[in-house]
Amino acid sequence: MDLVTLADIRAAQNRIGDVAVRTPLIPAPWAPGNGQLFIKPEMLQPIGAFKIRGAFNKIASLTADERARGLVASSSGNHAQAVAYAARMFDAKATIVIPDTAPAHKVAATKALGAEVILVPPAERDVVPRQLVADRGYVLVPPFDDAAIIAGQGTIGAEIADDLSDVDLVLVPVSGGGLISGVATAIKALRPEARVVGVEPELAADATDSFRTGRRVEWSPEQTHRTIADGLRTASVGVLPWEHIRAYVDDIVTVSEDEMRSTMRTLVVDGRLVAEPSGAAATAAYLYARERLPEATRTVAVASGGNADPALLAEILAIG
Amino acid sequence: MDLVTLADIRAAQNRIGDVAVRTPLIPAPWAPGNGQLFIKPEMLQPIGAFKIRGAFNKIASLTADERARGLVASSSGNHAQAVAYAARMFDAKATIVIPDTAPAHKVAATKALGAEVILVPPAERDVVPRQLVADRGYVLVPPFDDAAIIAGQGTIGAEIADDLSDVDLVLVPVSGGGLISGVATAIKALRPEARVVGVEPELAADATDSFRTGRRVEWSPEQTHRTIADGLRTASVGVLPWEHIRAYVDDIVTVSEDEMRSTMRTLVVDGRLVAEPSGAAATAAYLYARERLPEATRTVAVASGGNADPALLAEILAIG
Repeated sequence: MDLVTLADIRAAQNRIGDVAVRTPLIPAPWAPGNGQLFIKPEMLQPIGAFKIRGAFNKIASLTADERARGLVASSSGNHAQAVAYAARMFDAKATIVIPDTAPAHKVAATKALGAEVILVPPAERDVVPRQLVADRGYVLVPPFDDAAIIAGQGTIGAEIADDLSDVDLVLVPVSGGGLISGVATAIKALRPEARVVGVEPELAADATDSFRTGRRVEWSPEQTHRTIADGLRTASVGVLPWEHIRAYVDDIVTVSEDEMRSTMRTLVVDGRLVAEPSGAAATAAYLYARERLPEATRTVAVASGGNADPALLAEILAIG
Repeated sequence: MDLVTLADIRAAQNRIGDVAVRTPLIPAPWAPGNGQLFIKPEMLQPIGAFKIRGAFNKIASLTADERARGLVASSSGNHAQAVAYAARMFDAKATIVIPDTAPAHKVAATKALGAEVILVPPAERDVVPRQLVADRGYVLVPPFDDAAIIAGQGTIGAEIADDLSDVDLVLVPVSGGGLISGVATAIKALRPEARVVGVEPELAADATDSFRTGRRVEWSPEQTHRTIADGLRTASVGVLPWEHIRAYVDDIVTVSEDEMRSTMRTLVVDGRLVAEPSGAAATAAYLYARERLPEATRTVAVASGGNADPALLAEILAIG
């Protein structure tokens, strides 16, 4: 299986330049410890999450004929909005398959970006897109198990290495594994001395299990849906991401629900950034799991997204 | 009176490059209207506000001998932390005079940055720093009425023009006027067609009054302290800023307390950025006072700071 290369990632950088924000590294002098922490604030992307990088790179990599056939994706989260947003920039039709259990505001946000939404029972979320590909000729935009998606997310790693040439630790949340695959590919190519460590919720630690056992482990949806980090509930990492994780990732650690909530508060109060629980996970590892991380003078935590429920934010801020 | 020039601002850019974050323009596709809005997110600076730019430029412009004498500033807000932070980077002693009515957490934050804090009755906040200059030889770092401070804040305008060459409207909050003076100087030099409009709270509209009457008007502290925008309560713009405002600023508009609060919520939920009330003012003008603004296809709102009270944020988020 061919792995994504730095050349693929540089090509993705050229494609997404006018669409994705080139997020700066934000110093976090409020973080304790002797080293320095920087936040990579991907919540500042147009749809509030890094997903726009992969989705736009994938759609831009298609031929005009393929785009004209229409695009389809399955997602209840940030990937849905990313595909809708990117498709609109190409005047391409996007159809998003969303489980009928998803919150109404996420459905509305996807429709507001001009996509057609098809609500299906959760069990059919992967079947229906494949039917649409077969019946209507749509092109599938997968959330993570795809080389162009991984290359797009990898632009984050290239930007980190370009901006902080002596980075020695990069913390990245893991769900399907597209983000960490791309980031690790770029970091190991540009700064081989740096370690790349994945972060997962304790309650959805399938990638940690996989990393420990050396084989791709699957957790049940009942297990992974216990975490508030709705962006990190994928049952297992993808096939192609798993090959990248085996090749490039140094470790995977877990954080607790309370640690993610507390970090959301810290990011708002001290970092002036809004992170959803998934987006707070990597910073939480720095703040609460340092003894399980490699020694580092300069650490970057990827804050992957900021589409947090306002009621949850209000609750977390009121407690302090 | 000599006005600050683009050359002064470019020199400031070179000085502050390693200390201030070069904030990107964040597209705000969620904002209504036909034009495009971009946020300049200065809450992402190390101390949570643009003030680090002017304070660092001022201190870096001093001679080593001057810095060795020690620095003094009067502020209960973001300027206090900016001076403390910048002084520490030069290993210079900083003494910050703070009114004894200021919230304890602001005093603590300034002390945490290594500054000596002197609490004084509010009426003595300007007298005591002058005494310290006379008695101990300290060098004063003024909050706005100073060419090096204005040049430092002006780096924001230079970055805006460099990043968005066809910008046609820049919205900037006004208090003492250092920020808008620097921004307007840079914008008018680099993009003369663009308009620069100041934004104030209705409850602290001294600069609006000044602009309408053509002379520098002062409001009483009792009047200006009614607004929740604690960064915009200065009684009048400074002498040097006033000359820049007369030369370069196209208009000044006001926003209500409710409009700033509502915009804080919008910035959190849709922009994933934490703004304090002052930091939300310029975006509030775009959202709620558009009929009083010049026509524009590409607007930038300067979000000046993000040191918001968590309890206020929780209240605003819970209401939605």
